[in-house]
Amino acid sequence: MHLWAELTRERLGALLPEALVVLPVGATEQHGPHLPTGTDTLLAATVAERACRAAARCERPLILAPAVATGASDHHLTFGGTLSLRPETLLAVLLDLARSVAGCGGRRLVLVNGHGGNRGVCTDAASAASVRFGLSTAYANYWELIGGDDPLVPGHAGAFETSAVLALRPELVGERPEREAPPLPEVPGVVVQPESFWRDVDGYTDEPSRATAARGEKWLDAAVAGLAGRLEVLGRVL
Amino acid sequence: MHLWAELTRERLGALLPEALVVLPVGATEQHGPHLPTGTDTLLAATVAERACRAAARCERPLILAPAVATGASDHHLTFGGTLSLRPETLLAVLLDLARSVAGCGGRRLVLVNGHGGNRGVCTDAASAASVRFGLSTAYANYWELIGGDDPLVPGHAGAFETSAVLALRPELVGERPEREAPPLPEVPGVVVQPESFWRDVDGYTDEPSRATAARGEKWLDAAVAGLAGRLEVLGRVL
Amino acid sequence: MHLWAELTRERLGALLPEALVVLPVGATEQHGPHLPTGTDTLLAATVAERACRAAARCERPLILAPAVATGASDHHLTFGGTLSLRPETLLAVLLDLARSVAGCGGRRLVLVNGHGGNRGVCTDAASAASVRFGLSTAYANYWELIGGDDPLVPGHAGAFETSAVLALRPELVGERPEREAPPLPEVPGVVVQPESFWRDVDGYTDEPSRATAARGEKWLDAAVAGLAGRLEVLGRVL
Amino acid sequence: MHLWAELTRERLGALLPEALVVLPVGATEQHGPHLPTGTDTLLAATVAERACRAAARCERPLILAPAVATGASDHHLTFGGTLSLRPETLLAVLLDLARSVAGCGGRRLVLVNGHGGNRGVCTDAASAASVRFGLSTAYANYWELIGGDDPLVPGHAGAFETSAVLALRPELVGERPEREAPPLPEVPGVVVQPESFWRDVDGYTDEPSRATAARGEKWLDAAVAGLAGRLEVLGRVL
Amino acid sequence: MHLWAELTRERLGALLPEALVVLPVGATEQHGPHLPTGTDTLLAATVAERACRAAARCERPLILAPAVATGASDHHLTFGGTLSLRPETLLAVLLDLARSVAGCGGRRLVLVNGHGGNRGVCTDAASAASVRFGLSTAYANYWELIGGDDPLVPGHAGAFETSAVLALRPELVGERPEREAPPLPEVPGVVVQPESFWRDVDGYTDEPSRATAARGEKWLDAAVAGLAGRLEVLGRVL
Amino acid sequence: MHLWAELTRERLGALLPEALVVLPVGATEQHGPHLPTGTDTLLAATVAERACRAAARCERPLILAPAVATGASDHHLTFGGTLSLRPETLLAVLLDLARSVAGCGGRRLVLVNGHGGNRGVCTDAASAASVRFGLSTAYANYWELIGGDDPLVPGHAGAFETSAVLALRPELVGERPEREAPPLPEVPGVVVQPESFWRDVDGYTDEPSRATAARGEKWLDAAVAGLAGRLEVLGRVL
Repeated sequence: MHLWAELTRERLGALLPEALVVLPVGATEQHGPHLPTGTDTLLAATVAERACRAAARCERPLILAPAVATGASDHHLTFGGTLSLRPETLLAVLLDLARSVAGCGGRRLVLVNGHGGNRGVCTDAASAASVRFGLSTAYANYWELIGGDDPLVPGHAGAFETSAVLALRPELVGERPEREAPPLPEVPGVVVQPESFWRDVDGYTDEPSRATAARGEKWLDAAVAGLAGRLEVLGRVL
Repeated sequence: MHLWAELTRERLGALLPEALVVLPVGATEQHGPHLPTGTDTLLAATVAERACRAAARCERPLILAPAVATGASDHHLTFGGTLSLRPETLLAVLLDLARSVAGCGGRRLVLVNGHGGNRGVCTDAASAASVRFGLSTAYANYWELIGGDDPLVPGHAGAFETSAVLALRPELVGERPEREAPPLPEVPGVVVQPESFWRDVDGYTDEPSRATAARGEKWLDAAVAGLAGRLEVLGRVL
Repeated sequence: MHLWAELTRERLGALLPEALVVLPVGATEQHGPHLPTGTDTLLAATVAERACRAAARCERPLILAPAVATGASDHHLTFGGTLSLRPETLLAVLLDLARSVAGCGGRRLVLVNGHGGNRGVCTDAASAASVRFGLSTAYANYWELIGGDDPLVPGHAGAFETSAVLALRPELVGERPEREAPPLPEVPGVVVQPESFWRDVDGYTDEPSRATAARGEKWLDAAVAGLAGRLEVLGRVL
Repeated sequence: MHLWAELTRERLGALLPEALVVLPVGATEQHGPHLPTGTDTLLAATVAERACRAAARCERPLILAPAVATGASDHHLTFGGTLSLRPETLLAVLLDLARSVAGCGGRRLVLVNGHGGNRGVCTDAASAASVRFGLSTAYANYWELIGGDDPLVPGHAGAFETSAVLALRPELVGERPEREAPPLPEVPGVVVQPESFWRDVDGYTDEPSRATAARGEKWLDAAVAGLAGRLEVLGRVL
Repeated sequence: MHLWAELTRERLGALLPEALVVLPVGATEQHGPHLPTGTDTLLAATVAERACRAAARCERPLILAPAVATGASDHHLTFGGTLSLRPETLLAVLLDLARSVAGCGGRRLVLVNGHGGNRGVCTDAASAASVRFGLSTAYANYWELIGGDDPLVPGHAGAFETSAVLALRPELVGERPEREAPPLPEVPGVVVQPESFWRDVDGYTDEPSRATAARGEKWLDAAVAGLAGRLEVLGRVL
Repeated sequence: MHLWAELTRERLGALLPEALVVLPVGATEQHGPHLPTGTDTLLAATVAERACRAAARCERPLILAPAVATGASDHHLTFGGTLSLRPETLLAVLLDLARSVAGCGGRRLVLVNGHGGNRGVCTDAASAASVRFGLSTAYANYWELIGGDDPLVPGHAGAFETSAVLALRPELVGERPEREAPPLPEVPGVVVQPESFWRDVDGYTDEPSRATAARGEKWLDAAVAGLAGRLEVLGRVL
């Protein structure tokens, strides 16, 4: 497993035609009163790096690109603490990076996303990168590789993410608010965004107080294993 | 149920503050050697219109906007017969329309999508419309409201869409190709797009020859009922 | 005469190299207190379709593309009932469609416009489509093909358009306001837009009360004949 | 009559709320083998300046802004000698300038265009400037103010423009090519652009050899008088 | 030395492959209560033209393109009298012009800038023009070619620019304000822009009252000589 | 000193109105055959972080934002190993981040740049962020704070950067090429970019073989001290 930023151009030139380039896409945004704003980038980058190391049977070299540290978080700006790219900007960033990968000899790009608000852009970028630059692409949200269909996964700054940060960087977790989980507007098969949604839940979902480091470790391990397995498969099918 | 294009400004001005505006988003693109290129717009517009009529218990007025007839189909241009907007353009279109709805007194926008390639843009548009214009938004792909988890749904120009067009406009369906369903690159939780994907399957998935008008009617009825039910719920929660 | 949306890719692939592709460009915008907001799209699409059918002596196949249902109508947003694309967006739409036509083997594109506010964009699109994509293009405002130099043609939601909708969809025409025609700022050879213009005339020109279905039929017939004749000529010179 | 570039901010601040700001929009592009590439800017700027001086009875101060020296000339790039802005860029330029005029206290903007290829952009800019920045706007192509309906006006680098440059800068006119006027694709009411159009006529229309300085003076005088009269009217109606 | 706008396409076609194309980039913006708003364009265009004439030993033809008369001056809009392009627009303009130069056979582009606010855009344009269009480029701010490290050079509307306009167009210089030079926020190696900066100094730096026509002549002569010398060198190294 | 990504929204909300936000801007691009592609981001982020820690006397809180890891490196794509944003994209990124800082209560933004190719964009972003979002801004290239006017500083992948990476991450430095320093096109006061420049010097300047870890430490220490001192001053003047 290789870090793009640590390789020379010669080494990258030799590896890229055969490699999977793995690009973590994160966010820097409010995560309630208790979690650090860098949570999404931390989790996406950690899962991606661990999975690249764990994917020992991947038949292709794995090159981990520098994480995109800020994502599409306009809906959190009102709470403060948020560094957001408009979706138009994030799409331009991902396509410029894809263009670079292709222009430098790469053929396969895997987006590993850590933020719900990036899903639309990642979907578009993976598709357009394929058409415009001739790349074979894959895109996954790391939390969807955990398996098990836990209703707490992923939420936003709720029990899931709080557990994961407790597992990785407990010193960054502040006092967790106590509350009953507020109801979510659930309409199966529909993405619903009432204008007041984030205000209504004070910027985080479910109950952070239910988080534990142990659950975080378990979830992270599952995500890493899930992604590592997919990378091995992608090494064959892309 | 109202058609935006058939109302006067006064009527719209009175209805919009309370209404759900339903916007079908389609595509005009190659659908194999047998289906008309307007398939996605036909299906999205038909399901949206029928569902608006069927949602009798919706507590809010339903206003059906003119369908967006061309979507993000760059990946089909190579087969011919395709009128495609780049994702950047389609996003600008949907956001301009959302800005218009909000600027004319509307407060709720529901995107009903009929084309897989529009998913990223619809996701972004629903989110950004909420943040930028203060709209409550919802977004659904009509085929995800059918229920039952049929592996043939949706595909592209395969048994599902072919059945639906057979049900609606059988005279537009050409001779259906006979073949074994080619394997899809299935990696659970991952959107996979090998660069050669659409070429490998000749631009359509699974087996159009398995389509029947009866199946199409059943699927369309389920989609209409599914969307109508959601509209009734959205009338309460948005 | 062919409808793009009803053809398969194979049929389009065979027809496009020789065909004229006709693209109606409409608008969905306030048309005074009496006309439906879809007036411009209705008229452009109707005239284009009838003219394609009437152009029997056109030496080239005629392919009617799906109408662009929303145009550049920012100047009407303040009256409500308007779905507007910014001119930048509409230009991107028309150029993406032109790119698609050329990319799918087409060589000739004819824009049939139904909305005064689209003229600048249509002019640019026709010119840029020729340079960028190698298309031969033509662009016409349907009302300019009527002949006879009637001062009521075209106006906006005045006697002309009201007559045309009375001829086509009388049930959509509301009670027509009674008034003297307000003066227009006429400066020959100059396009004049006082900032208060549309407010001063309450969003429609001249006297809708002078409209009759008979006049509408006559005008529509003339527009159809005018466009059909031009299509026959274009079939030779493009 | 005032030149924007020669005034101080204080003087402009005092004049702008009452003034008409006149903005010439030109082009720098090939004009056949005989005319200088700056022809359009020369003519638009000359007519605009002379007309501002001649409009003695205009009730409003006239402020002449610096001419936009390069226009939308992509269709001439292939002949060489051309400095072209894409239409998207020229539109952004004109709207930024309109935003500046409004932001500095101006209320009225008059575009005087000297290049056929700028018509679409000028139309859009005049309309969007009104909506976005609250300006009253006017837009004219100087050659349409000459009157008399001469078929030689305007053409491109033909008898009309050649005459005008002979009148103003005869030393810049090279040997004029001798030829019969090639046929133009005339379809009344339709803007026709065969892909090969400019190549077919070698980049200029009609017969430059028919040009004389005397005709140029007459045409220029008529354009100046025509524009001056319109400015006087605009001083009342805007 | 040649003026692009005065040459025919044939002459430009012959000269461009060997020539240096010199493009002055100016601004039209408030210059305190005493200087004309066209100061930057006047100075950049004058220095560029004189230097082209003075660079007698330049081994390559010098072609002076029409000056870009308006630059990136958003920071001066609040004072009035300013015609500003957003930096995004100015970059598009410069890149479109560079594309044109390359598309018409040119190989070398020299930007001569006259406005501090254009530096970022000129830097980007010179670099991107090289990569995108294969041009060899150079970029200079004319005042940096004067030599001697005078702390009054350049300032904005202070002693330096006032002197230069006194030398060229004394009739355009109004009564010069008397004041002590306000302190500048000097942080060596850092570009500092306190939000209130321009307001604090009333839109001009240092002491215009110290300006004299004689100093202006000296500075202009030095700038012309400096640029002429560089053009001669660039004629060898580009 | 605070890391944005490690703080909660509440902590950032309290700090931002008084703080300096420090944003490192790097690049990921070829650095010759011997240096890692992440060199610029490594150096900018290291210097920025160390300087924030060293600026003990800064009267304002210092908040270090996540580094922008990829910059404007299109001119290096041809060598491979490069992840580049077009300048348009990087400008959009920096302005979106500045908008976020201002929208979350921040008032002061300091860009610390580590890549020559980012200079134009950083200049524009610092200026436009001030005008558009009301921020007080500062921008520095870290190498210009070292002092001493060493001709080896900065170069690209030459003795300076190689020394710095030897000091920080010696294990990432490959075998350094031996060569005589190729001549640079030096034209004082002019930014010169011959089209073949980077090819001519094989993508790196001067002599990497002259690098030592000791020199790197000295240079880095000087840059850190230089930036720390400036931050202390900026804490007073912004």
